[in-house]
Amino acid sequence: MKEYQKYLETLPFWKDLSNKEKENILSFSIVQKYDKGTFIHTQDDTCLGLIYVLKGDVRVYMVSEEGKEITLYHLLKNEIDVLSASCVVNQITFDTELIAKEDSELLIIPVTILSPLKDTNIYVRSYIYEVLADRFSDVMWTIQQILFLKMDQRIATYLVDASSQDNSLSIKTTHEEIAQEINSAREVVARVMKHFQNDGLIEMKRGTITILDKKRLLQLL
Amino acid sequence: MKEYQKYLETLPFWKDLSNKEKENILSFSIVQKYDKGTFIHTQDDTCLGLIYVLKGDVRVYMVSEEGKEITLYHLLKNEIDVLSASCVVNQITFDTELIAKEDSELLIIPVTILSPLKDTNIYVRSYIYEVLADRFSDVMWTIQQILFLKMDQRIATYLVDASSQDNSLSIKTTHEEIAQEINSAREVVARVMKHFQNDGLIEMKRGTITILDKKRLLQLL
Repeated sequence: MKEYQKYLETLPFWKDLSNKEKENILSFSIVQKYDKGTFIHTQDDTCLGLIYVLKGDVRVYMVSEEGKEITLYHLLKNEIDVLSASCVVNQITFDTELIAKEDSELLIIPVTILSPLKDTNIYVRSYIYEVLADRFSDVMWTIQQILFLKMDQRIATYLVDASSQDNSLSIKTTHEEIAQEINSAREVVARVMKHFQNDGLIEMKRGTITILDKKRLLQLL
Repeated sequence: MKEYQKYLETLPFWKDLSNKEKENILSFSIVQKYDKGTFIHTQDDTCLGLIYVLKGDVRVYMVSEEGKEITLYHLLKNEIDVLSASCVVNQITFDTELIAKEDSELLIIPVTILSPLKDTNIYVRSYIYEVLADRFSDVMWTIQQILFLKMDQRIATYLVDASSQDNSLSIKTTHEEIAQEINSAREVVARVMKHFQNDGLIEMKRGTITILDKKRLLQLL
């Protein structure tokens, strides 16, 4: 058994594949390592495929013709993306680039396998589009940050204030409570907090939020 | 046969529905008319469903907490959307609003029907996510316009598009309306338009903009 088989088996469509299809994916998928700072996919590259982050941190961004960059989202361990498979998904009409922000390891189902599977197996097809929907959601979050803000500022302010008030880096509170305090919605707070956690600013555990990096939190204000 | 059955039959998943499922959709889908300027869906509304534009022009936009609007895309005749079905698609974590820009007529498959279908019929599920991918593509186009393009390019793009759509060099619109469409301010649009007029690219007269030199306008794109 290939060492990465266990990851492939977590894909929701795995149980809906024929044995032949499973064999095919197992034979042609590859594990690729990227040193920190290496390009994983650029506008000039050919199509990559479905990527599964085994390790590391992948930054996904857009580049304007003048070279201006917009970070759309990050892919962390166990996250999946298909934006580098634009040749398989014709709705991907925009160019994105992927770079390893940390030393990263990716499991890749190449387009040569993914493309015919998408056409013949409705479960694979549906999954590809669901992954795209996840990324759409990420992008919309970023866009809202850029265009509207300043929700993360407001939440950062709240956390810093609460921490000073309790004279502790651990704050006993809930998303619901924060939402109430800053006049926002619980879902919005949950989303921002998840980002804060992914960025290593805070840690959330059973009704307690712990500030891990107060300095960077203060920089948000 | 209901008059709108022919539209439902064009949906790619129609052939993959059981007779019972078809009957259900036919029984519960509704055709709704919206006068120009009417809200179709707002952040406060409950979930709508899959919408199919039979007639008109629907503007889809986001609103910041301070009331700033960003036009994401328009839905024209025969276009389909699921963004107002956020309760069915958990990736839709952002709020959008829909307004009738012209008198519009929508065929709606309500969420009460759509939600169970998504769970039991993989073809419906896949289609919902494919529609979402189409809208993702639209949004990315808009975002690129906002973040990367210069204002004169954006306005030139708008004028050329509007002219093609109406198949006329005369466009009935106002600075206010253009500003809303390209996500800018009225003053900015007025300034660029004045430049265009001085350069002999366009002529402005009582609510009508006439393109005088389309060739040079196209060179701006």
